[in-house]
Amino acid sequence: MKTTKVRFTVAYDGTGYCGWQKQKQEGQISVASLIEKALERVFNEKITLFASGRTDAGVHAFNQVCHFSTHRKLDPAKKWDICWALNSHLPSSIVVKKAWIAPEEFHATISATHKTYRYFILNRPRPSAHLARHMDWVRKPLDIDILQVSTQYLVGNYDFKSFQSVGTPITDTVREVFQADWKWRKPDVLQFTITGDGFLKQMVRNIVGTALMIERRQENPVRMKEILDSMDRRQAGPPAPAAGLYLLRVYYPQDLDKQCIEL
Amino acid sequence: MKTTKVRFTVAYDGTGYCGWQKQKQEGQISVASLIEKALERVFNEKITLFASGRTDAGVHAFNQVCHFSTHRKLDPAKKWDICWALNSHLPSSIVVKKAWIAPEEFHATISATHKTYRYFILNRPRPSAHLARHMDWVRKPLDIDILQVSTQYLVGNYDFKSFQSVGTPITDTVREVFQADWKWRKPDVLQFTITGDGFLKQMVRNIVGTALMIERRQENPVRMKEILDSMDRRQAGPPAPAAGLYLLRVYYPQDLDKQCIEL
Repeated sequence: MKTTKVRFTVAYDGTGYCGWQKQKQEGQISVASLIEKALERVFNEKITLFASGRTDAGVHAFNQVCHFSTHRKLDPAKKWDICWALNSHLPSSIVVKKAWIAPEEFHATISATHKTYRYFILNRPRPSAHLARHMDWVRKPLDIDILQVSTQYLVGNYDFKSFQSVGTPITDTVREVFQADWKWRKPDVLQFTITGDGFLKQMVRNIVGTALMIERRQENPVRMKEILDSMDRRQAGPPAPAAGLYLLRVYYPQDLDKQCIEL
Repeated sequence: MKTTKVRFTVAYDGTGYCGWQKQKQEGQISVASLIEKALERVFNEKITLFASGRTDAGVHAFNQVCHFSTHRKLDPAKKWDICWALNSHLPSSIVVKKAWIAPEEFHATISATHKTYRYFILNRPRPSAHLARHMDWVRKPLDIDILQVSTQYLVGNYDFKSFQSVGTPITDTVREVFQADWKWRKPDVLQFTITGDGFLKQMVRNIVGTALMIERRQENPVRMKEILDSMDRRQAGPPAPAAGLYLLRVYYPQDLDKQCIEL
Protein backbone atom coordinates (compact mmCIF):
# COMPACT_ATOMS: atom_id res chain seq x y z
CA MET A 1 0.00 0.00 0.00
CA LYS A 2 1.36 3.37 -1.04
CA THR A 3 2.33 5.76 1.73
CA THR A 4 2.84 9.52 1.79
CA LYS A 5 5.86 11.12 3.40
CA VAL A 6 5.14 14.13 5.59
CA ARG A 7 7.83 16.61 6.66
CA PHE A 8 7.17 19.06 9.48
CA THR A 9 8.92 21.55 11.75
CA VAL A 10 8.34 21.64 15.47
CA ALA A 11 9.35 24.05 18.25
CA TYR A 12 9.66 22.93 21.84
CA ASP A 13 10.59 24.13 25.29
CA GLY A 14 12.81 21.25 26.40
CA THR A 15 12.57 22.02 30.13
CA GLY A 16 11.35 19.01 32.05
CA TYR A 17 11.74 16.55 29.18
CA CYS A 18 14.44 13.88 29.12
CA GLY A 19 15.40 15.16 25.67
CA TRP A 20 14.20 14.41 22.16
CA GLN A 21 14.57 10.64 22.42
CA LYS A 22 13.38 8.12 24.99
CA GLN A 23 15.97 7.24 27.64
CA LYS A 24 16.56 3.91 29.32
CA GLN A 25 15.34 5.17 32.70
CA GLU A 26 11.62 4.88 33.22
CA GLY A 27 9.28 7.66 34.25
CA GLN A 28 10.83 10.24 31.97
CA ILE A 29 8.96 11.84 29.09
CA SER A 30 10.65 12.55 25.77
CA VAL A 31 9.52 15.15 23.24
CA ALA A 32 9.50 12.53 20.46
CA SER A 33 7.22 10.16 22.37
CA LEU A 34 4.58 12.88 22.81
CA ILE A 35 4.71 13.85 19.13
CA GLU A 36 4.51 10.20 18.06
CA LYS A 37 1.48 9.73 20.31
CA ALA A 38 -0.19 12.85 18.85
CA LEU A 39 0.52 11.61 15.29
CA GLU A 40 -0.98 8.20 16.04
CA ARG A 41 -4.12 9.81 17.46
CA VAL A 42 -4.54 12.18 14.51
CA PHE A 43 -3.69 9.60 11.80
CA ASN A 44 -5.16 6.60 13.59
CA GLU A 45 -2.31 4.28 12.63
CA LYS A 46 1.11 3.22 13.95
CA ILE A 47 3.61 5.99 13.15
CA THR A 48 7.42 5.92 13.22
CA LEU A 49 8.89 9.37 13.71
CA PHE A 50 12.28 10.48 12.35
CA ALA A 51 14.01 13.74 13.28
CA SER A 52 17.11 15.59 12.09
CA GLY A 53 18.79 14.44 15.28
CA ARG A 54 18.43 14.24 19.04
CA THR A 55 18.56 17.09 21.49
CA ASP A 56 19.67 16.58 25.11
CA ALA A 57 17.49 16.88 28.20
CA GLY A 58 16.47 20.51 28.71
CA VAL A 59 17.63 21.67 25.25
CA HIS A 60 15.07 23.59 23.18
CA ALA A 61 14.24 23.81 19.49
CA PHE A 62 12.87 26.60 17.35
CA ASN A 63 12.77 24.42 14.24
CA GLN A 64 13.41 20.73 14.69
CA VAL A 65 12.69 18.93 11.40
CA CYS A 66 10.89 15.57 11.34
CA HIS A 67 9.26 13.18 8.91
CA PHE A 68 6.95 10.19 9.01
CA SER A 69 4.99 8.09 6.52
CA THR A 70 1.25 7.65 6.51
CA HIS A 71 -1.22 5.45 4.65
CA ARG A 72 -3.67 8.32 4.70
CA LYS A 73 -4.16 10.29 1.50
CA LEU A 74 -3.29 13.95 1.95
CA ASP A 75 -4.59 16.61 -0.40
CA PRO A 76 -2.94 20.05 -0.01
CA ALA A 77 -5.93 21.62 -1.76
CA LYS A 78 -8.22 20.47 1.07
CA LYS A 79 -6.43 22.83 3.47
CA TRP A 80 -6.66 20.42 6.39
CA ASP A 81 -4.65 22.12 9.14
CA ILE A 82 -2.57 19.14 10.23
CA CYS A 83 -0.48 21.40 12.53
CA TRP A 84 -3.60 22.57 14.33
CA ALA A 85 -4.79 18.96 14.69
CA LEU A 86 -1.45 17.83 16.13
CA ASN A 87 -1.11 20.82 18.46
CA SER A 88 -4.50 20.09 20.00
CA HIS A 89 -3.03 16.74 21.12
CA LEU A 90 0.23 18.25 22.40
CA PRO A 91 1.13 20.20 25.56
CA SER A 92 1.68 23.95 25.06
CA SER A 93 5.45 23.42 25.33
CA ILE A 94 5.49 21.59 21.96
CA VAL A 95 4.19 23.35 18.83
CA VAL A 96 4.08 21.92 15.31
CA LYS A 97 4.68 24.94 13.05
CA LYS A 98 4.53 23.87 9.42
CA ALA A 99 3.98 20.68 7.42
CA TRP A 100 4.66 19.59 3.85
CA ILE A 101 4.22 16.53 1.63
CA ALA A 102 7.82 15.50 1.07
CA PRO A 103 9.36 13.55 -1.83
CA GLU A 104 10.01 9.84 -1.21
CA GLU A 105 13.81 10.47 -1.08
CA PHE A 106 13.49 12.94 1.82
CA HIS A 107 14.73 11.65 5.18
CA ALA A 108 14.84 14.07 8.15
CA THR A 109 17.98 12.45 9.57
CA ILE A 110 19.90 11.27 6.51
CA SER A 111 19.14 14.16 4.12
CA ALA A 112 20.19 16.88 6.61
CA THR A 113 23.32 18.63 5.32
CA HIS A 114 23.98 21.04 8.17
CA LYS A 115 22.49 22.51 11.32
CA THR A 116 22.52 25.79 13.19
CA TYR A 117 22.38 25.98 16.99
CA ARG A 118 21.99 29.14 19.03
CA TYR A 119 22.96 29.69 22.66
CA PHE A 120 21.62 32.56 24.82
CA ILE A 121 23.34 34.03 27.88
CA LEU A 122 21.74 36.62 30.14
CA ASN A 123 24.66 38.78 31.27
CA ARG A 124 23.73 41.06 34.15
CA PRO A 125 24.17 41.24 37.94
CA ARG A 126 20.82 39.60 38.80
CA PRO A 127 19.25 36.53 37.19
CA SER A 128 15.76 36.70 35.64
CA ALA A 129 12.87 34.73 37.12
CA HIS A 130 11.19 34.74 33.72
CA LEU A 131 14.18 33.75 31.58
CA ALA A 132 15.64 31.05 33.88
CA ARG A 133 14.27 28.24 31.66
CA HIS A 134 15.33 29.97 28.45
CA MET A 135 18.89 31.25 28.93
CA ASP A 136 22.09 30.63 30.83
CA TRP A 137 23.01 33.44 33.25
CA VAL A 138 26.47 34.92 33.81
CA ARG A 139 26.81 37.53 36.55
CA LYS A 140 30.05 39.30 35.59
CA PRO A 141 30.25 41.42 32.39
CA LEU A 142 31.46 39.24 29.50
CA ASP A 143 34.17 40.29 27.07
CA ILE A 144 32.67 39.44 23.67
CA ASP A 145 36.02 39.89 21.90
CA ILE A 146 37.68 37.03 23.80
CA LEU A 147 34.66 34.82 23.13
CA GLN A 148 34.55 35.73 19.43
CA VAL A 149 38.27 35.30 18.76
CA SER A 150 38.38 31.99 20.65
CA THR A 151 35.56 30.34 18.68
CA GLN A 152 37.05 31.49 15.35
CA TYR A 153 39.69 28.78 15.87
CA LEU A 154 36.93 26.20 15.52
CA VAL A 155 35.76 27.27 12.06
CA GLY A 156 36.95 24.62 9.62
CA ASN A 157 37.26 20.87 9.26
CA TYR A 158 38.69 19.48 12.51
CA ASP A 159 38.64 16.56 14.89
CA PHE A 160 36.38 17.86 17.69
CA LYS A 161 37.16 15.01 20.10
CA SER A 162 37.99 17.52 22.88
CA PHE A 163 34.41 18.77 22.73
CA GLN A 164 32.59 15.42 22.74
CA SER A 165 31.06 14.34 26.05
CA VAL A 166 31.42 10.73 27.18
CA GLY A 167 28.70 8.13 26.72
CA THR A 168 28.47 7.86 22.95
CA PRO A 169 29.64 5.07 20.63
CA ILE A 170 30.69 7.60 17.96
CA THR A 171 34.37 7.27 17.02
CA ASP A 172 34.58 9.49 13.92
CA THR A 173 34.82 12.85 15.66
CA VAL A 174 35.77 14.93 12.60
CA ARG A 175 33.19 17.63 11.81
CA GLU A 176 33.11 20.81 9.80
CA VAL A 177 32.10 24.08 11.45
CA PHE A 178 31.12 26.73 8.91
CA GLN A 179 30.47 29.66 11.22
CA ALA A 180 30.61 30.40 14.97
CA ASP A 181 29.75 33.95 16.02
CA TRP A 182 28.94 35.89 19.18
CA LYS A 183 26.64 38.90 19.12
CA TRP A 184 24.91 41.17 21.66
CA ARG A 185 21.24 40.57 20.96
CA LYS A 186 20.20 43.04 23.65
CA PRO A 187 22.42 45.12 25.96
CA ASP A 188 22.35 42.23 28.47
CA VAL A 189 21.71 39.21 26.23
CA LEU A 190 24.57 37.56 24.39
CA GLN A 191 23.91 35.04 21.63
CA PHE A 192 26.25 32.48 20.12
CA THR A 193 25.34 31.01 16.73
CA ILE A 194 27.15 28.00 15.30
CA THR A 195 26.58 26.19 12.01
CA GLY A 196 28.18 22.87 11.12
CA ASP A 197 27.68 19.70 9.11
CA GLY A 198 26.99 17.81 12.32
CA PHE A 199 27.59 18.03 16.04
CA LEU A 200 28.98 15.53 18.56
CA LYS A 201 27.34 14.78 21.91
CA GLN A 202 27.07 18.08 23.84
CA MET A 203 29.54 19.66 21.39
CA VAL A 204 27.86 23.09 21.32
CA ARG A 205 27.48 23.22 25.10
CA ASN A 206 31.11 22.12 25.54
CA ILE A 207 32.30 24.81 23.10
CA VAL A 208 30.27 27.51 24.89
CA GLY A 209 31.48 26.25 28.29
CA THR A 210 35.09 26.32 27.09
CA ALA A 211 34.79 29.82 25.61
CA LEU A 212 33.28 31.04 28.90
CA MET A 213 36.10 29.36 30.84
CA ILE A 214 38.75 31.07 28.70
CA GLU A 215 36.97 34.42 29.14
CA ARG A 216 36.59 33.97 32.90
CA ARG A 217 40.27 33.12 33.32
CA GLN A 218 41.24 35.96 30.96
CA GLU A 219 43.35 33.52 28.96
CA ASN A 220 44.61 34.14 25.45
CA PRO A 221 41.83 33.11 23.05
CA VAL A 222 44.34 30.91 21.23
CA ARG A 223 43.84 28.54 24.18
CA MET A 224 40.78 27.32 22.24
CA LYS A 225 43.04 26.09 19.43
CA GLU A 226 45.33 24.33 21.92
CA ILE A 227 42.32 22.58 23.47
CA LEU A 228 41.05 21.59 20.00
CA ASP A 229 44.47 20.24 19.04
CA SER A 230 44.90 18.33 22.32
CA MET A 231 41.97 16.02 21.43
CA ASP A 232 41.56 15.64 25.18
CA ARG A 233 38.11 16.22 26.68
CA ARG A 234 39.66 17.10 30.06
CA GLN A 235 41.33 20.20 28.57
CA ALA A 236 37.96 21.73 27.62
CA GLY A 237 35.57 23.46 29.99
CA PRO A 238 32.40 21.98 31.49
CA PRO A 239 29.30 21.98 29.28
CA ALA A 240 27.23 25.18 29.50
CA PRO A 241 23.72 24.56 30.90
CA ALA A 242 21.15 22.99 28.55
CA ALA A 243 18.60 25.77 29.21
CA GLY A 244 20.49 28.22 26.96
CA LEU A 245 20.64 26.00 23.87
CA TYR A 246 18.25 25.99 20.89
CA LEU A 247 18.26 23.98 17.67
CA LEU A 248 17.63 26.92 15.35
CA ARG A 249 17.59 25.48 11.84
CA VAL A 250 18.28 22.31 9.87
CA TYR A 251 19.36 22.54 6.24
CA TYR A 252 18.51 20.13 3.41
CA PRO A 253 19.52 20.05 -0.27
CA GLN A 254 17.63 22.72 -2.22
CA ASP A 255 16.22 20.22 -4.71
CA LEU A 256 14.54 18.30 -1.85
CA ASP A 257 13.20 21.55 -0.34
CA LYS A 258 11.75 22.54 -3.72
CA GLN A 259 9.86 19.26 -4.06
CA CYS A 260 8.07 19.75 -0.72
CA ILE A 261 4.45 20.87 -1.03
CA GLU A 262 3.06 22.86 1.89
CA LEU A 263 -0.01 21.39 3.56
CA MET B 1 14.37 44.46 71.30
CA LYS B 2 14.68 46.86 68.38
CA THR B 3 13.98 45.49 64.93
CA THR B 4 14.90 46.73 61.46
CA LYS B 5 12.35 46.90 58.66
CA VAL B 6 13.54 45.60 55.30
CA ARG B 7 11.77 46.36 52.01
CA PHE B 8 12.54 44.36 48.89
CA THR B 9 11.32 43.75 45.34
CA VAL B 10 10.94 40.27 43.93
CA ALA B 11 10.22 38.91 40.43
CA TYR B 12 8.62 35.51 39.92
CA ASP B 13 7.37 33.18 37.24
CA GLY B 14 4.05 32.16 38.80
CA THR B 15 3.62 29.01 36.69
CA GLY B 16 3.13 25.96 38.87
CA TYR B 17 2.60 27.91 42.11
CA CYS B 18 -0.78 28.17 43.82
CA GLY B 19 -0.33 31.94 43.82
CA TRP B 20 1.36 34.38 46.17
CA GLN B 21 -0.40 33.16 49.30
CA LYS B 22 -0.86 29.69 50.78
CA GLN B 23 -4.18 28.05 49.88
CA LYS B 24 -6.33 25.79 52.01
CA GLN B 25 -5.63 22.75 49.84
CA GLU B 26 -2.55 20.84 50.82
CA GLY B 27 0.31 19.88 48.52
CA GLN B 28 0.42 23.26 46.78
CA ILE B 29 3.39 25.59 46.99
CA SER B 30 2.97 29.35 47.27
CA VAL B 31 5.56 31.94 46.26
CA ALA B 32 5.32 33.61 49.69
CA SER B 33 6.03 30.38 51.59
CA LEU B 34 9.28 29.83 49.65
CA ILE B 35 10.43 33.41 50.24
CA GLU B 36 9.55 33.20 53.94
CA LYS B 37 11.54 29.97 54.22
CA ALA B 38 14.54 31.57 52.45
CA LEU B 39 14.34 34.60 54.78
CA GLU B 40 14.26 32.37 57.85
CA ARG B 41 17.30 30.44 56.65
CA VAL B 42 19.28 33.58 55.85
CA PHE B 43 18.26 35.53 58.98
CA ASN B 44 18.05 32.51 61.27
CA GLU B 45 14.87 33.72 63.01
CA LYS B 46 11.09 33.51 62.60
CA ILE B 47 10.04 35.95 59.84
CA THR B 48 6.60 37.26 58.93
CA LEU B 49 6.40 38.40 55.33
CA PHE B 50 4.11 41.17 54.04
CA ALA B 51 3.52 41.96 50.37
CA SER B 52 1.70 44.69 48.44
CA GLY B 53 -1.02 42.14 47.74
CA ARG B 54 -1.68 38.64 46.52
CA THR B 55 -1.40 37.37 43.00
CA ASP B 56 -3.48 34.42 41.71
CA ALA B 57 -2.20 30.99 40.77
CA GLY B 58 -0.07 31.25 37.62
CA VAL B 59 0.16 35.06 37.68
CA HIS B 60 3.68 36.51 37.44
CA ALA B 61 5.44 39.53 38.93
CA PHE B 62 8.22 41.75 37.66
CA ASN B 63 8.30 43.80 40.86
CA GLN B 64 6.25 42.55 43.77
CA VAL B 65 7.06 44.67 46.86
CA CYS B 66 7.47 43.06 50.30
CA HIS B 67 8.66 43.90 53.78
CA PHE B 68 9.63 42.07 56.97
CA SER B 69 11.23 42.93 60.29
CA THR B 70 14.45 41.42 61.59
CA HIS B 71 16.34 41.51 64.90
CA ARG B 72 19.55 41.40 62.95
CA LYS B 73 21.51 44.66 62.61
CA LEU B 74 21.94 45.67 58.98
CA ASP B 75 24.67 48.04 57.91
CA PRO B 76 24.36 49.32 54.30
CA ALA B 77 28.06 50.24 54.37
CA LYS B 78 28.98 46.58 54.82
CA LYS B 79 27.61 45.80 51.33
CA TRP B 80 26.22 42.43 52.35
CA ASP B 81 24.35 41.23 49.26
CA ILE B 82 21.12 40.15 50.93
CA CYS B 83 19.49 39.56 47.50
CA TRP B 84 22.26 37.15 46.53
CA ALA B 85 21.92 35.35 49.86
CA LEU B 86 18.16 34.98 49.45
CA ASN B 87 18.37 33.91 45.80
CA SER B 88 20.74 31.10 46.69
CA HIS B 89 17.92 29.66 48.82
CA LEU B 90 15.23 30.19 46.16
CA PRO B 91 14.35 28.31 42.95
CA SER B 92 15.35 30.06 39.71
CA SER B 93 11.71 31.04 39.13
CA ILE B 94 11.85 33.49 42.09
CA VAL B 95 14.44 36.29 42.10
CA VAL B 96 14.90 38.95 44.80
CA LYS B 97 16.02 42.04 42.88
CA LYS B 98 16.68 44.88 45.32
CA ALA B 99 16.52 45.50 49.08
CA TRP B 100 16.38 48.59 51.29
CA ILE B 101 16.24 49.45 54.99
CA ALA B 102 12.76 50.98 55.21
CA PRO B 103 11.41 53.52 57.71
CA GLU B 104 9.30 52.13 60.57
CA GLU B 105 6.11 53.60 59.02
CA PHE B 106 6.57 51.64 55.78
CA HIS B 107 4.14 48.76 55.25
CA ALA B 108 4.18 46.89 51.91
CA THR B 109 0.41 46.31 51.99
CA ILE B 110 -0.98 49.37 53.76
CA SER B 111 1.35 52.05 52.37
CA ALA B 112 0.79 51.04 48.71
CA THR B 113 -1.05 53.85 46.89
CA HIS B 114 -1.45 52.28 43.46
CA LYS B 115 -0.37 49.39 41.29
CA THR B 116 0.33 48.71 37.63
CA TYR B 117 -0.43 45.38 35.99
CA ARG B 118 0.55 44.35 32.49
CA TYR B 119 -1.02 41.67 30.29
CA PHE B 120 0.68 40.11 27.25
CA ILE B 121 -1.08 38.47 24.30
CA LEU B 122 0.73 36.66 21.52
CA ASN B 123 -1.38 37.37 18.42
CA ARG B 124 -0.44 35.16 15.49
CA PRO B 125 -1.69 32.05 13.70
CA ARG B 126 0.50 29.58 15.65
CA PRO B 127 1.18 29.51 19.40
CA SER B 128 4.76 29.66 20.73
CA ALA B 129 6.27 26.70 22.59
CA HIS B 130 8.61 29.10 24.36
CA LEU B 131 6.10 31.78 25.36
CA ALA B 132 3.23 29.48 26.45
CA ARG B 133 3.97 30.12 30.15
CA HIS B 134 4.46 33.84 29.65
CA MET B 135 1.62 35.10 27.44
CA ASP B 136 -1.93 34.41 26.43
CA TRP B 137 -2.34 33.45 22.76
CA VAL B 138 -5.05 34.65 20.36
CA ARG B 139 -5.09 33.14 16.88
CA LYS B 140 -7.11 35.70 14.91
CA PRO B 141 -5.71 39.21 14.26
CA LEU B 142 -6.87 41.56 17.03
CA ASP B 143 -8.31 45.02 16.40
CA ILE B 144 -6.42 47.20 18.86
CA ASP B 145 -8.82 50.12 18.35
CA ILE B 146 -11.83 48.23 19.71
CA LEU B 147 -9.75 47.07 22.68
CA GLN B 148 -8.39 50.54 23.38
CA VAL B 149 -11.72 52.38 23.10
CA SER B 150 -13.51 49.78 25.26
CA THR B 151 -11.10 50.00 28.19
CA GLN B 152 -11.17 53.83 28.12
CA TYR B 153 -14.65 53.55 29.66
CA LEU B 154 -13.04 52.07 32.76
CA VAL B 155 -10.73 55.01 33.49
CA GLY B 156 -12.14 56.84 36.51
CA ASN B 157 -13.69 56.15 39.89
CA TYR B 158 -16.29 53.39 39.46
CA ASP B 159 -17.92 50.42 41.10
CA PHE B 160 -16.11 47.51 39.41
CA LYS B 161 -18.45 44.82 40.77
CA SER B 162 -18.98 43.42 37.25
CA PHE B 163 -15.28 42.59 37.09
CA GLN B 164 -14.87 40.93 40.48
CA SER B 165 -14.71 37.13 40.50
CA VAL B 166 -16.62 35.20 43.13
CA GLY B 167 -15.00 33.84 46.29
CA THR B 168 -13.96 37.03 48.08
CA PRO B 169 -15.44 38.66 51.18
CA ILE B 170 -14.81 42.16 49.76
CA THR B 171 -18.01 44.23 49.53
CA ASP B 172 -16.60 47.69 48.74
CA THR B 173 -16.04 47.26 45.04
CA VAL B 174 -15.35 50.91 44.17
CA ARG B 175 -11.87 51.45 42.74
CA GLU B 176 -10.13 54.13 40.74
CA VAL B 177 -8.45 53.27 37.46
CA PHE B 178 -5.98 55.93 36.36
CA GLN B 179 -4.90 54.53 33.03
CA ALA B 180 -5.69 51.48 30.84
CA ASP B 181 -3.88 51.27 27.50
CA TRP B 182 -3.25 48.77 24.74
CA LYS B 183 -0.08 48.86 22.66
CA TRP B 184 1.67 46.65 20.07
CA ARG B 185 4.91 45.75 21.82
CA LYS B 186 6.09 43.72 18.82
CA PRO B 187 4.29 43.10 15.51
CA ASP B 188 2.66 40.02 17.07
CA VAL B 189 2.69 40.87 20.80
CA LEU B 190 -0.03 43.06 22.27
CA GLN B 191 0.34 44.48 25.76
CA PHE B 192 -2.32 45.94 28.04
CA THR B 193 -1.18 48.15 30.92
CA ILE B 194 -3.53 49.21 33.69
CA THR B 195 -2.88 51.37 36.75
CA GLY B 196 -5.28 51.77 39.64
CA ASP B 197 -5.49 52.43 43.36
CA GLY B 198 -6.37 48.78 43.92
CA PHE B 199 -7.76 45.78 42.09
CA LEU B 200 -10.54 43.34 42.96
CA LYS B 201 -10.17 39.57 42.70
CA GLN B 202 -9.23 38.73 39.07
CA MET B 203 -10.25 42.25 38.02
CA VAL B 204 -7.48 42.71 35.45
CA ARG B 205 -8.05 39.27 33.93
CA ASN B 206 -11.80 39.90 33.83
CA ILE B 207 -11.28 43.27 32.12
CA VAL B 208 -8.92 41.74 29.53
CA GLY B 209 -11.31 38.81 28.99
CA THR B 210 -14.23 41.21 28.51
CA ALA B 211 -12.31 43.45 26.08
CA LEU B 212 -11.33 40.35 24.07
CA MET B 213 -14.98 39.17 24.09
CA ILE B 214 -16.20 42.54 22.76
CA GLU B 215 -13.48 42.48 20.09
CA ARG B 216 -14.24 38.89 19.07
CA ARG B 217 -17.96 39.62 18.76
CA GLN B 218 -17.20 42.88 16.94
CA GLU B 219 -19.48 44.71 19.35
CA ASN B 220 -19.51 48.46 19.88
CA PRO B 221 -16.77 49.24 22.45
CA VAL B 222 -19.39 51.13 24.49
CA ARG B 223 -20.55 47.65 25.53
CA MET B 224 -17.74 47.86 28.14
CA LYS B 225 -19.51 50.82 29.77
CA GLU B 226 -22.85 48.94 29.78
CA ILE B 227 -21.16 45.96 31.46
CA LEU B 228 -19.52 48.26 34.03
CA ASP B 229 -22.85 49.98 34.76
CA SER B 230 -24.74 46.67 35.03
CA MET B 231 -22.73 45.72 38.16
CA ASP B 232 -23.45 42.13 37.09
CA ARG B 233 -20.51 39.71 36.84
CA ARG B 234 -22.45 37.56 34.35
CA GLN B 235 -22.43 40.39 31.78
CA ALA B 236 -18.63 40.45 31.65
CA GLY B 237 -16.42 37.99 29.77
CA PRO B 238 -14.51 35.07 31.25
CA PRO B 239 -11.17 35.87 32.90
CA ALA B 240 -8.21 35.88 30.50
CA PRO B 241 -5.64 33.16 31.37
CA ALA B 242 -3.32 33.83 34.34
CA ALA B 243 -0.18 33.13 32.24
CA GLY B 244 -0.42 36.53 30.51
CA LEU B 245 -0.60 38.66 33.67
CA TYR B 246 2.28 40.40 35.45
CA LEU B 247 2.35 42.66 38.51
CA LEU B 248 4.57 45.34 37.00
CA ARG B 249 4.96 47.99 39.68
CA VAL B 250 3.68 49.05 43.09
CA TYR B 251 3.71 52.73 44.05
CA TYR B 252 4.29 54.20 47.54
CA PRO B 253 4.28 57.79 48.82
CA GLN B 254 7.44 59.62 47.70
CA ASP B 255 8.43 60.56 51.28
CA LEU B 256 8.50 56.85 52.23
CA ASP B 257 10.52 55.98 49.09
CA LYS B 258 13.02 58.71 49.93
CA GLN B 259 13.60 57.36 53.43
CA CYS B 260 14.54 53.90 52.11
CA ILE B 261 18.28 53.16 52.14
CA GLU B 262 19.50 50.67 49.56
CA LEU B 263 21.28 47.64 50.96
